[in-house]
Order: sequence, then structure tokens, then C-alpha cells
Amino acid sequence: MQSVNIGVLGLGTVGSGTVTVLRRNIEEIVRRAGRGIEITRAADRTLDKQRDYDVSGIDITTDAFDIVNDPNIHVVVELIGGTGIAKDLVMQAIEQGKHIVTANKALIALHGNELFAKAQEKGVTIAFEAAVAGGIPIIKAMREGLSANRIEWLAGIINGTGNYIMTEMRDKGRDFPDVLAEAQALGYAEADPTFDVEGIDAAHKLTIMASIAFGIPLQFDKAYTEGISQVSQEDVQYAAELGYIIKHLGIAKQTEQGVELRVHPTLIPHRRLIANVDGVMNAVLIKGDAVGPTLYYGAGAGSEATASAVVADIVDVVRALTSDPGNRVPHLAFQANALADTPILPISAVVTSYYLRIHTDDEPGVLADITRILGEQGISIEAILQKQPASHGGTVPVIILTQAVVEKNMDMAIQDIEALTTVKESVMRIRMESLG
Amino acid sequence: MQSVNIGVLGLGTVGSGTVTVLRRNIEEIVRRAGRGIEITRAADRTLDKQRDYDVSGIDITTDAFDIVNDPNIHVVVELIGGTGIAKDLVMQAIEQGKHIVTANKALIALHGNELFAKAQEKGVTIAFEAAVAGGIPIIKAMREGLSANRIEWLAGIINGTGNYIMTEMRDKGRDFPDVLAEAQALGYAEADPTFDVEGIDAAHKLTIMASIAFGIPLQFDKAYTEGISQVSQEDVQYAAELGYIIKHLGIAKQTEQGVELRVHPTLIPHRRLIANVDGVMNAVLIKGDAVGPTLYYGAGAGSEATASAVVADIVDVVRALTSDPGNRVPHLAFQANALADTPILPISAVVTSYYLRIHTDDEPGVLADITRILGEQGISIEAILQKQPASHGGTVPVIILTQAVVEKNMDMAIQDIEALTTVKESVMRIRMESLG
Repeated sequence: MQSVNIGVLGLGTVGSGTVTVLRRNIEEIVRRAGRGIEITRAADRTLDKQRDYDVSGIDITTDAFDIVNDPNIHVVVELIGGTGIAKDLVMQAIEQGKHIVTANKALIALHGNELFAKAQEKGVTIAFEAAVAGGIPIIKAMREGLSANRIEWLAGIINGTGNYIMTEMRDKGRDFPDVLAEAQALGYAEADPTFDVEGIDAAHKLTIMASIAFGIPLQFDKAYTEGISQVSQEDVQYAAELGYIIKHLGIAKQTEQGVELRVHPTLIPHRRLIANVDGVMNAVLIKGDAVGPTLYYGAGAGSEATASAVVADIVDVVRALTSDPGNRVPHLAFQANALADTPILPISAVVTSYYLRIHTDDEPGVLADITRILGEQGISIEAILQKQPASHGGTVPVIILTQAVVEKNMDMAIQDIEALTTVKESVMRIRMESLG
Repeated sequence: MQSVNIGVLGLGTVGSGTVTVLRRNIEEIVRRAGRGIEITRAADRTLDKQRDYDVSGIDITTDAFDIVNDPNIHVVVELIGGTGIAKDLVMQAIEQGKHIVTANKALIALHGNELFAKAQEKGVTIAFEAAVAGGIPIIKAMREGLSANRIEWLAGIINGTGNYIMTEMRDKGRDFPDVLAEAQALGYAEADPTFDVEGIDAAHKLTIMASIAFGIPLQFDKAYTEGISQVSQEDVQYAAELGYIIKHLGIAKQTEQGVELRVHPTLIPHRRLIANVDGVMNAVLIKGDAVGPTLYYGAGAGSEATASAVVADIVDVVRALTSDPGNRVPHLAFQANALADTPILPISAVVTSYYLRIHTDDEPGVLADITRILGEQGISIEAILQKQPASHGGTVPVIILTQAVVEKNMDMAIQDIEALTTVKESVMRIRMESLG
């Protein structure tokens, strides 16, 4: 089957990430999509830019309309942003019968109603997973995964810059202007931070999520927006004393009177999972009447994280174009004839760190014996905790955290430790994972 | 367009939830699916059971094969469980050309390869979102949402019973046998807890997730499984001292040698989000090469939570049967002609609790003035924190947490408070949400 040809409009942060991710993982992506996918053309502001990623074989032009009008392009990926030229390009591409993938939240929040009507008229689809919460597949989760539910409310940390600032204010006791200046220096915040810090970006995303949750047209102009610039260190500390953490949340709620749509600083009880989403990370908490609360967490911005959503949308479009409707998505994600024969490893071949609890007699030299045995198996020690004699029989619990080692070496070490005359009980071993 | 007819096999916990959720939310579900969906037949062990949910209009039989062979049934929902009769029924239904929705993890983990091959031959789909992590749309997230990524590893808390036990051991300092006995009394654990506590149930789910993540056939027999019954209170405490929390994790990891597939107790650094997933809740953390880590959290079991995934799968099947491939899923989740005109409320009509920070002169009677004003607006006080005079000008910060009130009343109260001669600065107001 012929490959699907993609035209990418805009080779900035997300555009370069999209080219990079699609090319790096093309083998797995084709196994999933069931068809070749090729970025054949791209538009950029300038042609003589230095690029630190592979654009070989891509016809790059400065004339984005030329791509939109190209009959050989099947899917147009709009990554220019804003509501000016981007809107004209998308409208023209729809007019030409092309499917659209976009990461443009402002475009969808402000002009989505018009664009979707046009797309329906022309029988094409507009995919916009990347417009909300970057790489987190939140649109898909709400639109398909939770379709059984009446959504009661949702609340999201959907601006990474704002969350970075709030996290620094709490963790380091710093004030807003100080953290903002640093975020600007680090490139986390724009020179004009209004869009992020005053909640406009979050309101775009919230508007989109609310429409999907409640089945209402997009109404960005009705969203209430309040920024975080007025929150002081004093407030952060008083909130903490009272058991709360302040987050900049976008909240949409179905009430009997209507829909609440609001972005503002919010106190949340400190033990809630969403209160512990820190730094530039995003998370969305959704309350459905059947499923209860579910939460989705991940990177809300960044080149490859956003590209992850863009490319997933491309795969979605390609699957729809390609397969029979009943088997659009393969049962095991990859096409049935494309499963790999990678072996499953026996546990003895697995590499992890370990927690060991060893009850020994309270005699000199025991620890030396144990550390010698571990050393013989090439096992490095991360930490040792030697406790006071426990109640049962005067043995001393020795707790050891090790560095990573293959399990069969640990098996041998434990065998040797248990053979020591000073060790009377089996060694308790629990594997450790940093999950970082 | 004619409604899609559903036959439900099994009216136990998940079956009754499925009937309940589909019927309660039928109006929204049809707005999403674009077509009527009706449970016309169901099979149960006995006909004269007392049912506390509405089964009117459903033809209930004890002969499940009669439903499977019924030409008027389009989709068979298998909620019997196990790998005996359930497998025969599903095979026969596929043979009859029916689409399958199932919550049966054992069936998929053990016989999925055979079932999927048969389904592909017959041109039908088998949907099994409910088989892993209950109501969390984790299959969809991995299979579609993360399709751009090379998945490096995933780690999940995917057995609620086990997580409840580990949480109680940590929070209450109780021992395993004690908590297990209570969980059994509360109905969280089965009379024979082996399946949950020894990790077999988790290994079923892990096997399914690993195949989807890495594109390999289902290989339950290769999974390493270790339970939590050997973990003692002593270990929980030593782990805590060292900065770790012990969770019963299912872990699948792609390595150069092969795939690791293992369920065992695991120490995790205590600040990781997944380490703070408590009680019967489930969560899956997935590391993709492009998106980085993403986490999915929610109820992993229960009648309506599992039904949420079953019904979402039904909607998926119906959307595929109904719409043109390019527009399978409506842009805003609901069909374009089915959007609602629910109004968006102005912020003045929103009801929340508040945090107020008021800097007052250090004079007697100020607090009485403030509480009087709040009372006049019908605002109840949850907590008051009066601080020592701050550095700036000897004013005293008074922090008040209120109960929920409509915002326009709070606006009036703040206006009155700011008019007090003893109040020199604007009142800082931050909204509070419990998100519970």
C-alpha cells in the first residue's frame, strides 16, 4: 500500500520534534499503523536555518500554501501556532480535502466551531490531541475512554510554566517575581509571560476540555481567567500551615445552572495526588459518574513530548484511512503480522537494586562476612542500616540497600549469607525501582 | 438508523454495573456514539434473582449460547469471567460474526493470541479495556495515545486488594495477616485471596499491557510472579526510614536481552507520584522515549468503574460500525448536531470555598467586624488563623478559610471588609477546591 504523505507546516520546537520522533520510531510506528508514513514536505520561515535533526528527503519550502494545495499531500500538520496565517492555512487545507493534525490550542479554542463544521462538510478530520496537555493523551481519554460517563467536573494543571513557578515558591520559599525571572532565564517562561502566568494559555486548553466533557460548543470568551502573579510567599506558607497547596488550576464543572469555566489559583488539600504534581509537569483530574475520579499525568510541553501527541494523531488518521472500520486499531496495538519475537527474560536475568533484611546474631565480624559475600558477587552497597537487637531472640536486623545487580548473582549471595552460622533466618529480599 | 443490540453474558458485579451505567447515561452516550444502543438480552445463572437495578425490557435467559447464536444481537459483552465457558462463548460469538467486549483478563492473557487470530479471520473486533485497571482507559492510552513512542518500561499498581493491604500496613502499622482478614470481612478480598495477593491477577494484566507496549504475543506463562504475603511490618518501617514506600508492582521493561515481565513487592522512592497511590486505587506509569513518563490513575475495580470501560468499548464498537472512518470519533466527543446549549456561568455565580488573607490594624474588635460582615453575607467560617504582627507596618495578618458560598456574596463581603478603617490593604482571596 502506498505511504501516507505528510506535510508539516512550521519547523519550530514542535515541528522539529515531530520530524525527529516520527523518523526515529518509524519502524515501530509502521508496525502500529499498518502503513508507511512519510513526511515529504515541510514549510519553514527560512530555508538556510541550521538544523540539528535529519531533514534529508524532505522538500522544505517557505510557501506553506503550496503544501496545503499539493495534491500529493494527504495530511497537513499545522505547527505554526496562533490564529492568523495558521487559520487560513487550515481552512484552505480542509477545503482541499486534507485531514488536519494540529497542536494549536488558540486556533481550536477560538475558531474550532467554525473549523469543525467545515471539516464535517468536507468529510475530513481535525485531530488536536497536542493542543491540550502536550504528550498526555487527555483528549482521547475523555472523548473515547470515558464515553460511558456523565462528566461531573474536571480540574487540570495545564500550564507547565505556572506550575513550575508555584512549585518553586512552595519548595524554596521564593517570591513570584524572583522565580519568574529565573524561569525566563532558563527558557521555561517567555519574555512576555502574560499568556502563561495570567492563565490565558490554560483557559484555551480548559475551553477545549470542557466542550469535550460536557458536549457544548467552544466558548473561550466565557472563560474566567485569573493569574498567579498576586499570590505571595505569605499565602503559600499560610496555606501549607492549614494543610493546603496552592496550584494554578483550570476547572470546568457541570452544575444545575450551567457550566463553570474558570482558571485561577486554588487551594487543594495537600494529600490529593494532583496537589503533588510538581515542576513543569501537567495533570488533569476528571470526575465521571461511573468511573469516579481518574487522573492523567505527564509532560505538558516540550519538543518531543508534544510531538508524541502529534504523531499519535497522525497514526490515528492513517489507521482510519487504511483499515476496515471494525479493526481500525490492532488488538495488541501492533498489526497482527508485525508482532516481535523478543524473548521474555527469566527472573534470574533481571537487573534491579535490592533491599535485604538479614537477622544475624549480635556478634563481631558478621557484617564483615556479609559485605565480603556481596562483594564476591560484584554487588555494591548503597546503604546499611543496623538496628538494635529486636525482641525475638536477640538477633540484630541488618538492612542493606544494594546497587543494581543481575538477580542470579543476588541469588548466590543470599545462599551464601544464609549459610553463615550467625544468620538464623531466611534473608528477606525486596526489589527496588527508582521509576525516575 | 437502527439501534445496535447488545447481549450481556453475566449479570454479576460488572454486568449489573454495565446495565445500570448504560441505562442511566443513555442520552449522553447516544449523543456521543451517534446511534441508539440497547441491551436487548442478557444471560444469568438464575432467573429469579432479586435485582436492585432496572432490567425492564431485557430478555434474560440462563442459556448464554442462545444469545451468542441470536442473529439480532450485534455485540456480545462477556462478563462471566474465567477461561472455561467464557472462552467457548466468545469463540462461538466470533464464529457468528459478532463483535466482542470483555472484562476478562484471564481469558485475554491466556487465550488472547488464539482469540485475536479468530477475530481477524472473521472480521470482528475484541475490545478488552475493562480487563486491565478497571475504569482507567489504559489500553486506549497505550495502543493509540502513545503510538508515537518506543515504550521503554511500564510499572503498575494493578491490583486494588493488594494495594489496600500495603497502604493499611504503612498507614496503620498493621501486619499482613491482620489487614488481609479485615479486607476479607469488608469484601475487598476474596475468601481465597491467592489470586490477588500472590500477584496472579496482576500478572494477567501485566501480560496484556506488555504485549501492547512492546508488540509481542501474549505470554502469561513467562511472567514472574511473587506475592506480598512475606512482606512484614518491619520491612515497611525500614523502607520508610530509608525514604521508600513498598508497593506491589507489575513491571514490564524492554532491555537489549529481551523483555522483563515481573510482579513483586517493590521499594519506590517516597516522593514519586505512583508511591502515593493509596487504598484500592490503581495507577500505571509508562515511560515512552518521546513523551517521557506519563501516569494514569483511577479505580481498578468495582461495579460501575469497570462498567465505565465496558460501555466505552461498546461506544467504540458502535462508532466504528456507524460512522465513516474519517470521522469515527466526533471532534468534540459528542456528535456535532448533538451539542448542548448549556450556559457558561459568570464567575459571580460560581460556588467555592475561600482562603482570605486580611491585613488589619492590631486593634480589639477587628475580628468581630470581619466575622460580622461574613455572617451578613451568609458565609460560614471553617478556620481562622491569626498571626503575629508582620514586619510591614505592624499590621496583623488574619487568615480565614470559609465554607462554600456563591462568589457574588463573597465579592460584597470583601468590599465591606476593605471599607473597614482598620483594614489598610486589599483582601487577598484564593478559591479552594477539595477535589474529593
